[in-house]
Amino acid sequence: MTTSIPQNEAREWTSDEYAPRKEDKFSFGLWTVGNRGRDPFGRIVREFKQALSDNGMVVPMATTNLFFHPIFKDGAFTSNDPTVRAFALQKTMRAIDLGAELGATTYVFWGGREGTETDAGKDPVVAVKRMRDAINFLCQYVVENGYQMRFALEPKPNEPRSDLYLPTIGHMLGFIYTLDHPEMIGLNPEVAHDLMAGLNFVHGVAQALDAGKLFHIDLNDQKGPRYDQDLRFGSENLKSMFFLVKLLEDKGYTGPRHFDAHAYRTEDEQGVWDFALGCMRTYNIFKGKARRFNADPEIQALLKEIRGGDQTYGGLLNGYSSETARKLKEATFDIETLAKRGLHYEKLDQLTVELILGAR
Amino acid sequence: MTTSIPQNEAREWTSDEYAPRKEDKFSFGLWTVGNRGRDPFGRIVREFKQALSDNGMVVPMATTNLFFHPIFKDGAFTSNDPTVRAFALQKTMRAIDLGAELGATTYVFWGGREGTETDAGKDPVVAVKRMRDAINFLCQYVVENGYQMRFALEPKPNEPRSDLYLPTIGHMLGFIYTLDHPEMIGLNPEVAHDLMAGLNFVHGVAQALDAGKLFHIDLNDQKGPRYDQDLRFGSENLKSMFFLVKLLEDKGYTGPRHFDAHAYRTEDEQGVWDFALGCMRTYNIFKGKARRFNADPEIQALLKEIRGGDQTYGGLLNGYSSETARKLKEATFDIETLAKRGLHYEKLDQLTVELILGAR
Amino acid sequence: MTTSIPQNEAREWTSDEYAPRKEDKFSFGLWTVGNRGRDPFGRIVREFKQALSDNGMVVPMATTNLFFHPIFKDGAFTSNDPTVRAFALQKTMRAIDLGAELGATTYVFWGGREGTETDAGKDPVVAVKRMRDAINFLCQYVVENGYQMRFALEPKPNEPRSDLYLPTIGHMLGFIYTLDHPEMIGLNPEVAHDLMAGLNFVHGVAQALDAGKLFHIDLNDQKGPRYDQDLRFGSENLKSMFFLVKLLEDKGYTGPRHFDAHAYRTEDEQGVWDFALGCMRTYNIFKGKARRFNADPEIQALLKEIRGGDQTYGGLLNGYSSETARKLKEATFDIETLAKRGLHYEKLDQLTVELILGAR
Amino acid sequence: MTTSIPQNEAREWTSDEYAPRKEDKFSFGLWTVGNRGRDPFGRIVREFKQALSDNGMVVPMATTNLFFHPIFKDGAFTSNDPTVRAFALQKTMRAIDLGAELGATTYVFWGGREGTETDAGKDPVVAVKRMRDAINFLCQYVVENGYQMRFALEPKPNEPRSDLYLPTIGHMLGFIYTLDHPEMIGLNPEVAHDLMAGLNFVHGVAQALDAGKLFHIDLNDQKGPRYDQDLRFGSENLKSMFFLVKLLEDKGYTGPRHFDAHAYRTEDEQGVWDFALGCMRTYNIFKGKARRFNADPEIQALLKEIRGGDQTYGGLLNGYSSETARKLKEATFDIETLAKRGLHYEKLDQLTVELILGAR
Repeated sequence: MTTSIPQNEAREWTSDEYAPRKEDKFSFGLWTVGNRGRDPFGRIVREFKQALSDNGMVVPMATTNLFFHPIFKDGAFTSNDPTVRAFALQKTMRAIDLGAELGATTYVFWGGREGTETDAGKDPVVAVKRMRDAINFLCQYVVENGYQMRFALEPKPNEPRSDLYLPTIGHMLGFIYTLDHPEMIGLNPEVAHDLMAGLNFVHGVAQALDAGKLFHIDLNDQKGPRYDQDLRFGSENLKSMFFLVKLLEDKGYTGPRHFDAHAYRTEDEQGVWDFALGCMRTYNIFKGKARRFNADPEIQALLKEIRGGDQTYGGLLNGYSSETARKLKEATFDIETLAKRGLHYEKLDQLTVELILGAR
Repeated sequence: MTTSIPQNEAREWTSDEYAPRKEDKFSFGLWTVGNRGRDPFGRIVREFKQALSDNGMVVPMATTNLFFHPIFKDGAFTSNDPTVRAFALQKTMRAIDLGAELGATTYVFWGGREGTETDAGKDPVVAVKRMRDAINFLCQYVVENGYQMRFALEPKPNEPRSDLYLPTIGHMLGFIYTLDHPEMIGLNPEVAHDLMAGLNFVHGVAQALDAGKLFHIDLNDQKGPRYDQDLRFGSENLKSMFFLVKLLEDKGYTGPRHFDAHAYRTEDEQGVWDFALGCMRTYNIFKGKARRFNADPEIQALLKEIRGGDQTYGGLLNGYSSETARKLKEATFDIETLAKRGLHYEKLDQLTVELILGAR
Repeated sequence: MTTSIPQNEAREWTSDEYAPRKEDKFSFGLWTVGNRGRDPFGRIVREFKQALSDNGMVVPMATTNLFFHPIFKDGAFTSNDPTVRAFALQKTMRAIDLGAELGATTYVFWGGREGTETDAGKDPVVAVKRMRDAINFLCQYVVENGYQMRFALEPKPNEPRSDLYLPTIGHMLGFIYTLDHPEMIGLNPEVAHDLMAGLNFVHGVAQALDAGKLFHIDLNDQKGPRYDQDLRFGSENLKSMFFLVKLLEDKGYTGPRHFDAHAYRTEDEQGVWDFALGCMRTYNIFKGKARRFNADPEIQALLKEIRGGDQTYGGLLNGYSSETARKLKEATFDIETLAKRGLHYEKLDQLTVELILGAR
Repeated sequence: MTTSIPQNEAREWTSDEYAPRKEDKFSFGLWTVGNRGRDPFGRIVREFKQALSDNGMVVPMATTNLFFHPIFKDGAFTSNDPTVRAFALQKTMRAIDLGAELGATTYVFWGGREGTETDAGKDPVVAVKRMRDAINFLCQYVVENGYQMRFALEPKPNEPRSDLYLPTIGHMLGFIYTLDHPEMIGLNPEVAHDLMAGLNFVHGVAQALDAGKLFHIDLNDQKGPRYDQDLRFGSENLKSMFFLVKLLEDKGYTGPRHFDAHAYRTEDEQGVWDFALGCMRTYNIFKGKARRFNADPEIQALLKEIRGGDQTYGGLLNGYSSETARKLKEATFDIETLAKRGLHYEKLDQLTVELILGAR
């Protein structure tokens, strides 16, 4: 479960233009400052609801832990053991009930154990079917109970299993369309997870946005293909995280900006708050830079030129007709001239880098 | 364009049980022994058709080159320049016409330049839309012309662009479902491309099979995340390629086993034929091992046990009903016992490795 | 601390030619079947020595844990805190004393926390100096105490720190030569660690052998750049591990074949023994294959040809003299002929792969 | 061969504080704006020397191409063919003569083909020996000819070979100490090459500096483990390149800041100049930020605290003596208090990131 961020900590360090505000839609998991991998709730539902109400806070997202307990060592929904699969459904139905009671409208699935160390033991086609059966079952459960809840699937390529099924934004997207209720299912992509596969996270999120499937997002950072680091948002890939914030802001993403990160293990409690504030400040710094990028006359003039090109055939690109096809097939192109055209991407990128570095 | 492999070379080296035969459905690109990146056809269509006919060969797959000429330096279908996009459509329509004339039933798209070096210059959501517009256009073109042709999209994460759009099997699958004619579109996954992202290729192919989207496959090999190596099939990832062959054979994949690989640059012409024969022999060796795996009593007994588990709740996993949900929610699970169960994957994997090594 | 492997378990599963024997020099850490990251000794030294003596076992290697306790969260020898550095020296001197008492002749250093998450906080040149100061200090301690002990440094690129200092075999080798007693210091390379950096481990071990610095070796396996997996030896990179075993055997490496690996987390105790036996069996299978490779007439004939070449100038490659330099500068080479020579590496590699797969 | 950068181009775009100046010691290869992989010299030595003289330019570095011509397809100094090894020595002696004539004081070795696709064909220990023999030979040649020249070795992990020998800064360092004249040999590390192995380049350069072996440096950028990208310096890893510039400037590196990068393939000639200017501007921007970092009161106060710690035992860390060892062994440490100390790295890193982003 997550909550929106309390405001008082933000004020401790700084009150400049980058200080987090309520309208920023920042959220953190309750486990960020605690111990990961534990279910944060016992029998405190009533008190928790009261606390939320008293503080004007909401629970936007719910989940349950299907990876920490050794019963899930071979997966939950894809376990080879039918009893484990049955237990995973039970545990999830109960978590959905609780999430609904607390007002959560998004339920996140992260299948931390849905994978293999050896492909000798599990049929990978059967594994996909099992995952589909489980999600279809739970969708129907939500529908029948009249819950206003949709599901967000979180992909990850590996760790703690050697290879996880449905490892990237793309694989999850492809999977969603094979479900009974694709309209109920979207994604919760995480920065670090795609970077572990060396992928361009901005492109992945753009594809999810294009498909209307960006239900939630986990912001953090990662130094390329290695162990899952969950670093402070924007602490490593400064350029790429700038483009990510720009994409979310430009495209009007309205969901939570959720930080699923952890402070360095060198930190004490004060360090954890420094870390949390840093996540939010860096997001706001990039948001400011995205506005500057969109307003920078030199950058915008360059972009206009780059995206301009010869418009002679622009009219033939608005969809198929026999006539359009015929015209295109008969057209004569000045290939050599087109090939020689310089695209000014070096200059555009340098201007962008200088903007990111605060040098323009 | 590809052709099925001539049989005489295969006989040169060896005539044992692993020697390639016509029914193996092996194919190579005409560029494998030549120079990549050139369109292999001029005005030789008539002669080529005659040669195919004379030799009982077929052209199962056609494509065109949208990445070598500098006009495509910023992409073909996703170029920022509308004239380049128009030219790419023209070039592809002509190649489709030619492919149809030669009897090709699969048309492969590999968008080698559809990507970016800097995300400053191209809107990644717009790029996906442009790609969709192009494929939709060309689908309609095929439909209107009555061609018996379907499209196979080939994903790749990077190289020659810094980041390519729709970089993995998963991203392409997700994209397909947003098209006007998803039933016409499938995948042409390539071993090396997914390994460049550190992904489990067997899992990716399994997902494509599950979705009915494995239209074609490019077999080669690769040493993990680095430059695209196109190594001889099965020359590096022996275990993973065993599981791949096992998957293709067990699931009854009927398409070509297409080798899109290249001989080491140290080779002369004889070395290229050694390389081609090696691709086919290794496939057949793995095919034989897959049969042995399925017939090995010890392995099969272990698998039966691993996949067995307690069947008490197995009956509740066959789809949703209110009654099933109620029963699952009320069930009592002996979690500790389930958690302690050993799964014997180490032994199973060791037996598998010994089978692969020919030690059992 | 490590012990040579008890023989009885090995007999459980199999008694074929690959079953481990005492002369194989296999060893495992005591922590392999227990919990990693704990110091395995309390006040049981006397009993332990007796047990070793009773069973004819030796302790070839000692170490201490400078990474688990949170006092080492910023490193031990490279910590920014001088008190932590002092404590690390104390702990290591005591462990050296104990190791000497138990007869260990190799002391392994693995600096699991010697690194950074951010390069803002630690000067990387100072870090190397601190590491050197510590090793120099401890060498002198060993010398002064008359211990027959040498040090083996174990490199790792990352995890649990974001970046570890001296991350590969190469970096450790370079570091050793800057020490006061380079003759006392060698390496303990680990398969998984170099594979995390995508490096060719066989090449790295060869360089260590060339330098006379392969004091110890940690055998396991790893699926490329991702979290540290410590998989069963030979379970993933079948070809590369074959070449590794071939190198160790061909070059007459006499040290322990130490397995620093862990069973999959899916296993119970029986699975751990399956895992341990699998490590040893696979080593022996590869050892047998290395002998076959060296005896295979077709492979050896091919190698002879490949390594042959034109010997005209072979005599000029045996060291510098003015005369040799003059002759070489005046020589005329038939560059085009040399350039066209095919090297038959594809055939050689295919024969090797078939040998590894047991198909020849 | 390289030259210092002409000044006029730098003035074209901008004349702000980041514009390159002569004292910045920037240099580019002559091949940067031309076609890589060709030897840039024919019979133009006299004219070239005149041009250098007329323009007050120097040739700080020389090299020759031992990787482009197919004669080197299996390596130059490590080729299995003795005639190729002999030819490589000849070619290098001639290039050394020419470099000496032009006044070059550093000779760079990049062994682009010194590696393997299959370890079946080349003994990796023999390969290291061959490399050593070649460098020893050439050192002696330089000594005998009285040239004022030292060698800089450039490591790279792979591409164009599947695995290159001596793949990182570390491996090259270790190799140097096994040579006859280690004092003549240093390194020419390249940003992109270490990033291809996922290593921390700043740490590697620091180790080279510590050893007095940073003879030259190739600046560019790279998106992690993938094909060699040679991107504009500072265009990707903004944070890491800041730390690199800070290291070079803080430690007083006096050699050339050499940009071995290439413009995106989308560019025309103007784009190449934009690219070159961008490399230099970004270096200067980071140099300015390094000065600010060193002068920032909040950052410096934090660093002082972080690097402070309890000094009780500081006096025992200045080298070994029996007395020091005794005192350290007897000391009592308050482990729990030390373990709980927060290290403020999150705050320090956030302040650093904000400084890099120009937000402080």
